[in-house]
Amino acid sequence: MNIAEYLERKRVDVDRFLDLVAPPSVTAPTTLHESMRYSLLAGGKRIRPILTIAAAEALGSTAPGLMPVACSLELIHTYSLIHDDLPSMDNDDFRRGKPTNHKVYGDAMAILAGDALLTMAFDLISRPDLMKGCDPVRQVRLVQELAFGSGNSGMVGGQVFDIQAERKDIDLTTLQTIHKHKTGMLIRAAVRMGAVAAGATDRQLDDLTGYAEDIGLAFQIADDVLNVTGTREELGKNPNTDAERGKKTYPTFYGVDGAKQLAEDCVTRAITRLVSLGPPADPLREIARYITSRKN
Amino acid sequence: MNIAEYLERKRVDVDRFLDLVAPPSVTAPTTLHESMRYSLLAGGKRIRPILTIAAAEALGSTAPGLMPVACSLELIHTYSLIHDDLPSMDNDDFRRGKPTNHKVYGDAMAILAGDALLTMAFDLISRPDLMKGCDPVRQVRLVQELAFGSGNSGMVGGQVFDIQAERKDIDLTTLQTIHKHKTGMLIRAAVRMGAVAAGATDRQLDDLTGYAEDIGLAFQIADDVLNVTGTREELGKNPNTDAERGKKTYPTFYGVDGAKQLAEDCVTRAITRLVSLGPPADPLREIARYITSRKN
Repeated sequence: MNIAEYLERKRVDVDRFLDLVAPPSVTAPTTLHESMRYSLLAGGKRIRPILTIAAAEALGSTAPGLMPVACSLELIHTYSLIHDDLPSMDNDDFRRGKPTNHKVYGDAMAILAGDALLTMAFDLISRPDLMKGCDPVRQVRLVQELAFGSGNSGMVGGQVFDIQAERKDIDLTTLQTIHKHKTGMLIRAAVRMGAVAAGATDRQLDDLTGYAEDIGLAFQIADDVLNVTGTREELGKNPNTDAERGKKTYPTFYGVDGAKQLAEDCVTRAITRLVSLGPPADPLREIARYITSRKN
Repeated sequence: MNIAEYLERKRVDVDRFLDLVAPPSVTAPTTLHESMRYSLLAGGKRIRPILTIAAAEALGSTAPGLMPVACSLELIHTYSLIHDDLPSMDNDDFRRGKPTNHKVYGDAMAILAGDALLTMAFDLISRPDLMKGCDPVRQVRLVQELAFGSGNSGMVGGQVFDIQAERKDIDLTTLQTIHKHKTGMLIRAAVRMGAVAAGATDRQLDDLTGYAEDIGLAFQIADDVLNVTGTREELGKNPNTDAERGKKTYPTFYGVDGAKQLAEDCVTRAITRLVSLGPPADPLREIARYITSRKN
């Protein structure tokens, strides 16, 4: 299969659906809706929703409500970027080459747009029109997965671990804790939600959870490596910012080559988890390989 | 019935449950959990969860999962206060006589504690242990009610309307739009969620929705009146702050006596909505009367 083509096709589907369900800029409160749309429709690889879709497809399912379920993860991801970029957090002025949300709409509106996107994630997976045909028992489990992966036990907790580690001489265990929560838990939720929506057996859910944890780690290590080895053109931002900020990353502990190898090992392990799923899991396998081969 | 005693008993139940389910300060990330607990357990009348409980009781129900459902509304209310108090929003240093969350934990942690509490509201109503016995169809509807009442179409939208009206010469319609969303929609969700949890018929849900909309308005008008007529001792803060800030309120448009009458009319109308529900709805009736008689 051609993974680039697969990712592009799914990305277009996700973008189209997000544009459809995001509140229109012409309805009041217009500025809030504009601000939500500004960040939500700013591009991005849409890797989390695509993982949800690919996980459901791996189980041979076109589950009802799969698209809203998948897109709920992008809403959570987007709100987290808006809040992370705020002056009192990372204080970033640009994201993906565009001014950050608060630079355009002000801090107050950026906070509220984030809050609204977070809330909308749960709206999306509980809307009767969009989720028609989805088993309500599964739907409740999806809500639980999303809340668990994105709240204090998941993504938000990881953000706190990250803030607390700033400018500190952290050890490898702390680095792992940060990433497991900050990026890992939402990727885990993305894959698990696809599996739950598709009616996975306990065994399938375990396998897919293992896959998700492995690629979550590979994703983060690859990001750290790219920060060292990428060019300004490839990354769309200056390289080597981690080292300049004195931030400890996987290359700090393992060296660039060691970190690359570690990421490859994670990918191999992730793919091994999918043995029982056969050819329908090919997109998941290719996504795992893509993670360490991408240039940005 | 003695409404003061009823409210106090329920308030204690709600406080106890919130203390039980809030993440412990001893587990990591400890600062996040402390910050969440600081605002969540800072007292307050717990009027929203009590409305949920009273609405379910009015239908003769001790619905499974009623307490987590009720408390999810307090989590949303608390997160909204934390974010509203931030420097880039209302910039308040004190709430209920205590320093605001960001004054104690810093802006970044306050933003994240708010995000975590918001997310936890949805965690609570989807947790299998806490919601055991609740019909999953109803559970999905509860998620939908909570998301709708608190997101861009509800509370967050109202906050935006409010910000945009600051220092502007707004008319009565705009004032109504602000309050309908900022405070009204969450009170409406509180009552409706109690009704849904208890398995309300369509007719009962309509009646209770009307009740909720009427008391929501009465609540806001009474707040505006108290801001003019209350003493520093009663309010726990300086009175007349609205006028000093040039903020238009119900007394601006109707005078104090006119606004009082309007609130009374809302209460009367709210109580009329409950005719078909008989004695089990007495707490809801008394809560409506309490709204205009309270001193803070």
